[in-house]
Amino acid sequence: MRGSFISFEGLDGSGKSTQIRLLSIGLREAGFDCIETREPGGTSLGRLLRSAFLETKETVSPIAELLLFSADRAQHVNMLIKPSLEQGKIVLSDRFADSTIAYQCGGRELKRETVDYLIKIATDGLKPDLTILLDLPVEEALRRKNAENRMDSENAEFYERVRQTYLKIAKEEPERFRVVSATGSVEQINQKLLSIVLDFLRSRYEF
Amino acid sequence: MRGSFISFEGLDGSGKSTQIRLLSIGLREAGFDCIETREPGGTSLGRLLRSAFLETKETVSPIAELLLFSADRAQHVNMLIKPSLEQGKIVLSDRFADSTIAYQCGGRELKRETVDYLIKIATDGLKPDLTILLDLPVEEALRRKNAENRMDSENAEFYERVRQTYLKIAKEEPERFRVVSATGSVEQINQKLLSIVLDFLRSRYEF
Repeated sequence: MRGSFISFEGLDGSGKSTQIRLLSIGLREAGFDCIETREPGGTSLGRLLRSAFLETKETVSPIAELLLFSADRAQHVNMLIKPSLEQGKIVLSDRFADSTIAYQCGGRELKRETVDYLIKIATDGLKPDLTILLDLPVEEALRRKNAENRMDSENAEFYERVRQTYLKIAKEEPERFRVVSATGSVEQINQKLLSIVLDFLRSRYEF
Repeated sequence: MRGSFISFEGLDGSGKSTQIRLLSIGLREAGFDCIETREPGGTSLGRLLRSAFLETKETVSPIAELLLFSADRAQHVNMLIKPSLEQGKIVLSDRFADSTIAYQCGGRELKRETVDYLIKIATDGLKPDLTILLDLPVEEALRRKNAENRMDSENAEFYERVRQTYLKIAKEEPERFRVVSATGSVEQINQKLLSIVLDFLRSRYEF
């Protein structure tokens, strides 16, 4: 039985990592073998690349940033996601290729064609089976964000473009995406996600 | 006056870094403002990426490797090479895009189309004005190589494909390439390179 690949998207501050942690507990209780991972930084190389990106004092050009995240993704797909799916696991990833469309096309305004090509070669065609978009108004995301974090050092307009791009690509692929408001309590959102993911797994594995 | 971009290619052990150091001394004596740089690792981000690549104990997938070197190159072109050329400098780079064709297409046998696309977006179309290929038989390169170095951990067949790819692309662009045997003494090769580069600069700047 092939595993399932579920990605979590949204602005920083939307609660992805907390929700993934809680969801994985719920899924394990329901008997699923699941792993939690992230981009960037899901592999040993990826963690080093993530550190390099966070540590450099240099301005990173938008194209270098795109290529760096793509290198992380290629390694992630090859070393972790594909082997885990082949072992029948449920892979929960904090960000995947949709982040690159939202941030690099939407936020940085790179060409969609270039970004799509890089996603294609980095993922080797792998797509999530299900994607949860935790949607949050930019004002609330900025309120929650940690100003120390380099990845959060952008302005409200940038984040508004990212959010709108997320909502646009979610509309383009309604079968794959579930848009969930990230403004409820942690517990409420966890219940909603657990219900969505268990429904999805039930229909997929017919149990 | 726009500067000149000169790249140095060849197998590890072909003496590129020694020759660049000696050449830069000769060029400065002749009155040129030149800088020495390298790929990977010509920028602050690039040095961190190079360390990440050398430090990870994980097998790096060929596509991740290609994307990682491309990220380094995009940053190198954007932050160092282009600004230096605009300031009229002579940029001497230990490796550039031809390394990616030789190692990733020739060595790792990735598709030329994929590699060409990544070169295009990482370089934004920038090509060296002159490329020196220090050609060395593989047997001699392996004799000189440091077995500790991760980048040298390949077999003779791999290096033979790299060498033959270098020679092939040099033939395709005879205007840009000068192929120099790397088997002479350091001093002989330095004299030859100084003569080639000064001739090139004379014809370019008509002095």
